[in-house]
Amino acid sequence: MNKENGLSRRGFIRNAGLVTASAGIALAAGDFGFVRKAGATGGTTEKWPWPYVKLDPEKTAQIAYDEWYRVFCGAAVINSVFSQLREEVGEPYTSFPSDAFVFLEGGMVGWGTVCGSNAGANVVANVITGPRTLGAEHDAGHLIGSDIMDWYANTALPVFKPAKPRVETAIMQTTAQSPLCHVSVGRWMKETGYPIKSAERKDRCARVAASVAQQLVTHLNAWKDGDYDPHSSWSGVGSVGITAQQNCTDCHGDSIPEAPTKKI
Amino acid sequence: MNKENGLSRRGFIRNAGLVTASAGIALAAGDFGFVRKAGATGGTTEKWPWPYVKLDPEKTAQIAYDEWYRVFCGAAVINSVFSQLREEVGEPYTSFPSDAFVFLEGGMVGWGTVCGSNAGANVVANVITGPRTLGAEHDAGHLIGSDIMDWYANTALPVFKPAKPRVETAIMQTTAQSPLCHVSVGRWMKETGYPIKSAERKDRCARVAASVAQQLVTHLNAWKDGDYDPHSSWSGVGSVGITAQQNCTDCHGDSIPEAPTKKI
Repeated sequence: MNKENGLSRRGFIRNAGLVTASAGIALAAGDFGFVRKAGATGGTTEKWPWPYVKLDPEKTAQIAYDEWYRVFCGAAVINSVFSQLREEVGEPYTSFPSDAFVFLEGGMVGWGTVCGSNAGANVVANVITGPRTLGAEHDAGHLIGSDIMDWYANTALPVFKPAKPRVETAIMQTTAQSPLCHVSVGRWMKETGYPIKSAERKDRCARVAASVAQQLVTHLNAWKDGDYDPHSSWSGVGSVGITAQQNCTDCHGDSIPEAPTKKI
Repeated sequence: MNKENGLSRRGFIRNAGLVTASAGIALAAGDFGFVRKAGATGGTTEKWPWPYVKLDPEKTAQIAYDEWYRVFCGAAVINSVFSQLREEVGEPYTSFPSDAFVFLEGGMVGWGTVCGSNAGANVVANVITGPRTLGAEHDAGHLIGSDIMDWYANTALPVFKPAKPRVETAIMQTTAQSPLCHVSVGRWMKETGYPIKSAERKDRCARVAASVAQQLVTHLNAWKDGDYDPHSSWSGVGSVGITAQQNCTDCHGDSIPEAPTKKI
């Protein structure tokens, strides 16, 4: 799903309360049967959006690449943005415990579920813009998160090339067709023949984290400028009647139940 | 994988620097090829562990159940713990932007990846105990997170029954065999016939979030007492050479590539 299909373009999202044409935006979640409700529980940092200054996507990607080798994919993406905002803005970024998010590694403590780069990007986008439950002016984080997942699943990655690669071998690009760590890493391993512990696999994942950070900041900068244009219109609930990624037939083959028929 | 298999019992984990017998603990992640490195980036809340006082698991579950109807699975689990610690402890919990984690809903913005209850539990455990990259005395969050995923995948859920259910219909228990939202919800929908938007499906997910919160606090209380005993020894990398959940054959049927042979 991308904007070329003619189905997914929506009006620009204006930040800081200047939302327009976002009524259709929360489809993926709205279809999941949720109703907006106001009222945060009142934490001192729960006033959104957090102040944001535009960052350089290339520089952010380089930080994420280097950070991967310290805190791995999820925390690398978070730190690539928040370390700069700690310097540029200060609080509330200084108080966010970024390094605790090391646990996003390996698809969450090694279980191969959602790629930590996708999860980290969702943390950043939603911590900055706030939860969609507060109202349509806080939809951007949810939308950017979904855009990142869609782009990640449908793009030959990694796209970022570090200035000083830690691995000189050419790193092949593969398209994950999924936001999941297991499927993304598995497809790359199958295509290249490199095992999980190889330096090449690690550098591939560091470059994927960097690529996601680059894409994330591009979206956040557009949001800051008031012209963020969501690309993805994916809604698993809307399409197949259940929360889902897009590659149904990857798993729904001959040996397991058919994908459910939408019946709502 | 549970402690009955005789493979997974390890020494008790002592909190607050009194770690014993945790050398084998980080297998799931250690096998993923990572090396411990010290050095946080220096946020004001990045001093671990955060102060923790023991909470009542039943009360926590009830809070999570109610919070689901405001902020959905992931943020419900986070708030069920952190809202109490804001009252009992104050900072740094007051500064954690819990409600931003609404995005964990529906397996992350509706994509059906990791169940938000599992993700929320991982956030709580790791934000409290700190990242494992700081050293073995900070392993507990990673281990509790993995224990929750294992228990979630292999337990007939929900186990929690609210004092005042919003839905009077009996809510059937099903075993997800996976930490993923799509698979967990899908198996329950297939078994019960209820669609995604039904009040029963929503209440089932609220009770699952509550069940996870209850289990999480049970682990955290044990950790606080210095006798947390990790149950899960699951390592996808160790078992099949790639980050993975345990139910390989759910997806690796006839129509897609075989599960990779471990070659490291």
